[in-house]
Amino acid sequence: MSGSRKDYVRPLDLRNGRVDMGHGAGGRSSAQLIEELFLAAFDNDWLRQGDDGASLAIPSGARMVMATDGHVVSPLFFPGGDVGCLSVHGTINDLAMCGAKPLYLAASFILEEGFPLADLQRIVASMAAASRAAGVPVVTGDTKVVERGKGDGVFISTTGIGVAPAGVNVAGANARPGDAILLSGTIGDHGVAVLSKRQALDFETTITSDTAALHGLVAAMLKASSRIGVLRDPTRGGLATTLNEIARQSKVGMVLEEAAIPVLPQVDAACELLGLDPLYVANEGKLVAICAADAADDVLAAMRAHPLGERAVRIGTVTEDPHRFVQMNTRFGGRRVVDWLSGEQLPRIC
Amino acid sequence: MSGSRKDYVRPLDLRNGRVDMGHGAGGRSSAQLIEELFLAAFDNDWLRQGDDGASLAIPSGARMVMATDGHVVSPLFFPGGDVGCLSVHGTINDLAMCGAKPLYLAASFILEEGFPLADLQRIVASMAAASRAAGVPVVTGDTKVVERGKGDGVFISTTGIGVAPAGVNVAGANARPGDAILLSGTIGDHGVAVLSKRQALDFETTITSDTAALHGLVAAMLKASSRIGVLRDPTRGGLATTLNEIARQSKVGMVLEEAAIPVLPQVDAACELLGLDPLYVANEGKLVAICAADAADDVLAAMRAHPLGERAVRIGTVTEDPHRFVQMNTRFGGRRVVDWLSGEQLPRIC
Repeated sequence: MSGSRKDYVRPLDLRNGRVDMGHGAGGRSSAQLIEELFLAAFDNDWLRQGDDGASLAIPSGARMVMATDGHVVSPLFFPGGDVGCLSVHGTINDLAMCGAKPLYLAASFILEEGFPLADLQRIVASMAAASRAAGVPVVTGDTKVVERGKGDGVFISTTGIGVAPAGVNVAGANARPGDAILLSGTIGDHGVAVLSKRQALDFETTITSDTAALHGLVAAMLKASSRIGVLRDPTRGGLATTLNEIARQSKVGMVLEEAAIPVLPQVDAACELLGLDPLYVANEGKLVAICAADAADDVLAAMRAHPLGERAVRIGTVTEDPHRFVQMNTRFGGRRVVDWLSGEQLPRIC
Repeated sequence: MSGSRKDYVRPLDLRNGRVDMGHGAGGRSSAQLIEELFLAAFDNDWLRQGDDGASLAIPSGARMVMATDGHVVSPLFFPGGDVGCLSVHGTINDLAMCGAKPLYLAASFILEEGFPLADLQRIVASMAAASRAAGVPVVTGDTKVVERGKGDGVFISTTGIGVAPAGVNVAGANARPGDAILLSGTIGDHGVAVLSKRQALDFETTITSDTAALHGLVAAMLKASSRIGVLRDPTRGGLATTLNEIARQSKVGMVLEEAAIPVLPQVDAACELLGLDPLYVANEGKLVAICAADAADDVLAAMRAHPLGERAVRIGTVTEDPHRFVQMNTRFGGRRVVDWLSGEQLPRIC
């Protein structure tokens, strides 16, 4: 937007004001919301241009990757994050899991009438900070407003584009029998953090979400080895569902070692209390990698050298299996099938 | 998704079934919804791959354009369209208004628990048909579900990427004093069509939305002249707000001829009845173009030769004006200022 403050009768009341239907009507108050709240936070040349879309430079000859993710997490603020940073991390991670370097983000906001502008500003500031920290700007956006009772505060759909370097071919269908299955760290942190806040549970230790942008970790891993076939972040449905998805796409089975899968003691305790299995609880800053067995040590070393992969471990092996079962050798010496998440365990976790 | 029907106990009940929280939980029933409803409609290799993002070919050396648009129209079905085709047209038009050829779409769905699967299927089919007709595939997507009373049926955020040919430089800041202001057809059709359905008004003639993808029209116009500076589709806020936005971005004034602006008689009558000014009513298949005065005839001829521009007209002239006023010579010989839309006229029109 190229205007100046004097176009508006008075500045937005960012302390006590609330979203009203006019903020979504496309007129002067929409323009004011964009300028004084969104543009003030995301501040960059693409948004300042004020056009219907952003014009972007793309390295020539590159393969583009596009990913989109809607964020409806409830509550909007939780230990370790909020819907704002989550919506940046989630989409960056979707791109990174395709082996791409994320370049640009677009954000579509659906706001509920009456939502406090101060909360919106806090969310947008968190989003802007996450975007800056990741080096991936929000270059275009859209805002709609729905009547009170027709939404739930703020929904954010974030779409990203990135480029995949030549030679990188990472996809869910690339797992081969004999490959190693690696995990970047502890599981269940995000889901339990959100749930603890939602249910106002008071654990002795605070459990914080692991929400983080994983593209730096992925870049380090791809640099360490060209033999990584699959990358996937175990979000909704947790590690168990993610591995089942990959087994299905690659037409393989898997055998996991339960004892190798890291779970923070406080997350383990909370899951026991809540009747949850950490294998099915969402993560927002973890990844699974599947690579050739003899590349596993190099990839693990690269992961452990990165702050977001310090606790990286090998958790299992890809097998030949016409049933595409994900199985697990338990701590007690047995073996069981680890199925997909069925139905709903934790709604609105991301 | 690479699986087969036998992975699920029974197929989705697309006739009587409803969206439930499990459809958004990321487990087996999410996968089933994606496969049997979304993938069945959009059917293409990118989606079939089943990864977190889509890998895309982009012409090398091109300038990319990215645009995003949330769609919360109420009601979801209206004369001439529905939220599905609207969400495709809206985003394609945002790209086209940047002078870009649209290439790919991403769709993020936020569904309300209890929404009929049959309605969802109808919306997705309309989206898929619009996408196919426009030649712009939906290559990746995401689905979330919120509890009953926390959403409103279906919200769709659609993001598009496209490429701008070398030499095309279309932006809101490019209007110059002396330029001609062109309009591709009648105004107000979309907003009045939605409102008539919402208020269950029974006009003698059905008023249908003008929702349409304008990239073909734009391509014809850009081929006819390289001297088009601005393109913009007058959606929310209508023609009046769109022209004020451009005046502000370009730091110019405008003078319009009221008698030249086409309004269908039934739309005019409905606006009178409803107390609306067609200048502020949303359109979804119209565009404004601003071009050098001596290129106006060529551009108008190209517009009129295209089915979506048959009623194209010149409606005014860009002026030098430090106040950036949009003014209008009225039918009665006077002149008045045409201001931005203030507050809310028609909520949730797109």
